[in-house]
Order: sequence, then structure tokens, then C-alpha cells
Amino acid sequence: MTLQSRIETALADAIHAGQRGPTPARLAAALDYAVNPGGARIRPTILLSVATACGDERPGLADAAAAALELIHCASLVHDDLPCFDDADQRRGKPTLHRAYSEPLAVLAGDSLIVMAFQVLARAAVADPGRAVQLTLTLAERTGMPGGICAGQGWESEPEVDLAAYHRAKTGALFVAATRMGAIAAGQEPEPWDELGARIGEAFQVADDLRDVLYDSAALGKPAGQDAALGRPSAVTAYGVQGAIRYLQDSLAGAIASIPHCPGEAALARMVRAQAERLTPVAPVRQAL
Amino acid sequence: MTLQSRIETALADAIHAGQRGPTPARLAAALDYAVNPGGARIRPTILLSVATACGDERPGLADAAAAALELIHCASLVHDDLPCFDDADQRRGKPTLHRAYSEPLAVLAGDSLIVMAFQVLARAAVADPGRAVQLTLTLAERTGMPGGICAGQGWESEPEVDLAAYHRAKTGALFVAATRMGAIAAGQEPEPWDELGARIGEAFQVADDLRDVLYDSAALGKPAGQDAALGRPSAVTAYGVQGAIRYLQDSLAGAIASIPHCPGEAALARMVRAQAERLTPVAPVRQAL
Repeated sequence: MTLQSRIETALADAIHAGQRGPTPARLAAALDYAVNPGGARIRPTILLSVATACGDERPGLADAAAAALELIHCASLVHDDLPCFDDADQRRGKPTLHRAYSEPLAVLAGDSLIVMAFQVLARAAVADPGRAVQLTLTLAERTGMPGGICAGQGWESEPEVDLAAYHRAKTGALFVAATRMGAIAAGQEPEPWDELGARIGEAFQVADDLRDVLYDSAALGKPAGQDAALGRPSAVTAYGVQGAIRYLQDSLAGAIASIPHCPGEAALARMVRAQAERLTPVAPVRQAL
Repeated sequence: MTLQSRIETALADAIHAGQRGPTPARLAAALDYAVNPGGARIRPTILLSVATACGDERPGLADAAAAALELIHCASLVHDDLPCFDDADQRRGKPTLHRAYSEPLAVLAGDSLIVMAFQVLARAAVADPGRAVQLTLTLAERTGMPGGICAGQGWESEPEVDLAAYHRAKTGALFVAATRMGAIAAGQEPEPWDELGARIGEAFQVADDLRDVLYDSAALGKPAGQDAALGRPSAVTAYGVQGAIRYLQDSLAGAIASIPHCPGEAALARMVRAQAERLTPVAPVRQAL
């Protein structure tokens, strides 16, 4: 099975488990809407790539970790789009969940997806409860307070922002979760995999900043120009377009250089290079020059 | 240590763990505000009472379970109070979290508390990973979809409501979680404890319906008359005040009768009777007659 089909199967299993018995049908549909069709599934792809590079000796646990991580990511998109945050109308080229279903169902869908993420990990624990607990601790640390994506979003309500902590938490957290969880699922120590996750996260944030400036809403599938409109920190504001592209390429080179020695080192480097090509917005940049 | 001080210590430990290192200070304060000062802590009290009745051979795990359950309950109150649900101004005699801190911080605080609940269970897993996984599965099942409190709230967005499923999920779920998790933490099978949780949950819902009709907002510490205002199903509408009181007393008698044979059976029955006295709104009923 390809990584992509492993991810989609694990996500579909999780969503279907939440639809057994008497179920409020609109909330059940909203969960599916939040998760499918997905974006690039970049975080679970990184997770499974790291697990594969480490031998992937517990593929069921790795699949559960990948699904759990993507469910948390989807939950964060649903809540970040709410009127009290970005008030976004579009996401992945379709109406945001609160526009399609209602604001109450968007709040509940986000909550339910967070719960589902931890449930998926616990269900997969039969194979190895110790590793499942470590995966749960890692996912919780990178999702909640004080260092996860909730904290990252929380920094936007502070009068004074610790920029390093803000970026680490807001975008970096789930990428570090991806590399750490891939290693844990395969029975390896997570710490050596931190830099790979952090560097990919950095590149991803810069690429997002670039796309926000260079693409229009139709190409993005969500509103463009949001960083400037909402006064958010952006690598493009800090370094300019060309500077930001250099920063992105340096981050990805650093990511590849940081890959620990492991059986699948070369294949993993190829995956990062493929992500790099996907992330770097070449064509629109040429138009913008 | 009393049950009450075990609960408060476990909650304080959880909240403080979320404040280490660079932290968005307002979100950290919002988490504390959501949890302290607490209400009656009835769910974790039931959980620890059941664990005690079963011998409480892993008190650290029981304390973690109690804290996790109360964190989920507090998260649900914060999200239920949001403008898109109850739009409540007051909770436990003080401004609701979104009024005191802002709507974005209320969404994030609820999310963070859900994550924290699962984190607390995972941290306590060292003692017994197998039981911690079982506790996680039980808490997730009673919180998310399709049978947890998220589903309960989700039923309110349905054109046709399955009333039994709605009540079971909306109020019953966390009471059944309380009795099951108490048993699991102490190494017992959870199923025999379902009826106790379900009956207490039923009594609690009816008592809540009664208080909503009989008390004013000052006595409740939150808005009164909400069931009628929001068109929610209520035992008082269905059975009248006296009928609802009889229903409440029958539920509590059924709860006591359902207690499985265990070393602490008599003490547990006393705890349920004490909850019964606390729940039954005697004085205001006399005024209302």
C-alpha cells in the first residue's frame, strides 16, 4: 500500500467508528466534511515516511499515529476558520465548515476530532501500550498548552508576542510531532528527529507566507492576503519575496542535512526534496518579479 | 487526604504542567479560570468514590482519571456557554470565560482542556499502561462521537431528535464515565458500574431541569429559565414539578440498588444519598407550591 492509501484508510476507519449506533447525523456528516477530501496530508506523510525510514516494524501503530495527527490538524483548521478567528468563507476550495453546517456544529466537530485523535491512538494500543502512551504524550504536547498549536493560536491574543515561541507552536509543533511520532511508532528515540520536523515546519510556514502574498484566492482555495489584512507576522514582510524563497530553500537543505542515520535515509531525503518542490511557488513568483 | 483534596491537587498539577516555559499568559490564565474555583466536582467525586469502594489499589491512576474527567466537563461548560450555543453571561457566579477573556480564548481554552485531559491520563500511565489505555478509551467514548457529550450537544442541531440517545449522551455520558473509570482505575470490570452512572446522571439531569424552573439566576449562578427559553426538553415540562421530584428520587433509589457487591458498598450508598440530598431542591419547591 502507498503511504497515501494507508493514511486515507486509517482516516476513513476513524470517521466510520464515530458513526456507529444512533448518531446525530449532521455532526457525523460535518466530521467527514472536515476531513475529506483532504489537502496534501503532508503531516501524516512525513510521519509515515519517518516510520518507514526507521523500519516501520509496527505499521498499525504508525497508521493510527498518522490518522491521529491529521485529525488534530483538521480540527485546528475548523476552529481557526471560525468567525471569532479568521472568519474564513473558503477552505480547500469549498465553504468552511461553519458556513456549510453552522457555527455550533463547527465548534463540536473540532472538539470531536480532537477526542477522536486520542481515541484512535488508544485503540491501536493493544499492539504496544507503552509506545501508544508515548505517542499520546507527544501528540498532546504538540497540540495543547504550553507548546502546542493551541498555544500558538493563543499567542495571537497576547499584547506582547514571544515570536520564536509563537512560530514554534503555531506551525512547527505538528511537524515536530510528525517526525517524533514516526520514530516512536517504529520503536526509535524521538529526540534525534526534532530538527527534521522543525526545519520542515519552518519551510512550510515560509511557503505559506509566500503563497498568501503571491497567489490569489482562487489558486489558494482560501482567502489570500490574510497576513497583511490581519497584521500577522510574515517571512515576506521580514525578508521580501526573494529573501523568503532563499530562507525556504535553506530550511529544506537543513532539514535534509539533519536526517539521522537510519536504514531509509536516502528515501527520506527524496521525500523532503519532493515536498520542497511542491512547496516552492516558482511560477507565480516569476509573474510577480 | 479527602476525595475533595485529591481532586483539587490533581487538577492543580494538570493546570501547572500547562504553564511551564514560554506560555501565552492570557490563555494560561483562561485555563485556570475555567477550572477554578470549581463547582461541586460531582463527577470526579463519584469516580473516586467508586475507585475507593473497589479498593483503590492505584490511587495515582484514579486521581489522574478524576482530573481528566473534570477537565472534560470544564471544557464542555466553556464551549456550551459560547455565543453560538447558550450565549451565557454567567457561570458559577462569575462572568463566563468568553465574556471575561474573549471568544477566541474561550474556544482555545476548551480545546486545550480536552487535550490536557488525555495528557493527564497518559502521564499517569507509567504505573499501568494497560489500565491507562482503557481509561482513555472510556473517556473518549463518553466525550466524542457518536455517544459522548459532543454527540449530546450535536443532537440539538438535528431536525429529529432521538430523545433517549440525546439524554444518554448529553448528561448521562460523563456520569457513566465516572463510575466506569473509577472501576477501571481500581482494576475492576467497568460494565457492572454502568447502571449506577446512568441512574445518577438521570437524577442529575432532572435536578438540573427542576433548578432551571425553580431557582432564579442569582441562586443558580447562571441564567434561569433557559430550557423554556431555548425550547429544550425538560423533565418538568414532561412530568410537572412534583412528578419530576418523584422521578429524581426513583432514579437515586435505583442508583443505590444497582451498586455491585464490593468492599466499600455501604460507604458508596451513603455518598449517593448525600448527593441525593444536595440535588433535591427542597426549599424552593416549598415556595413554589
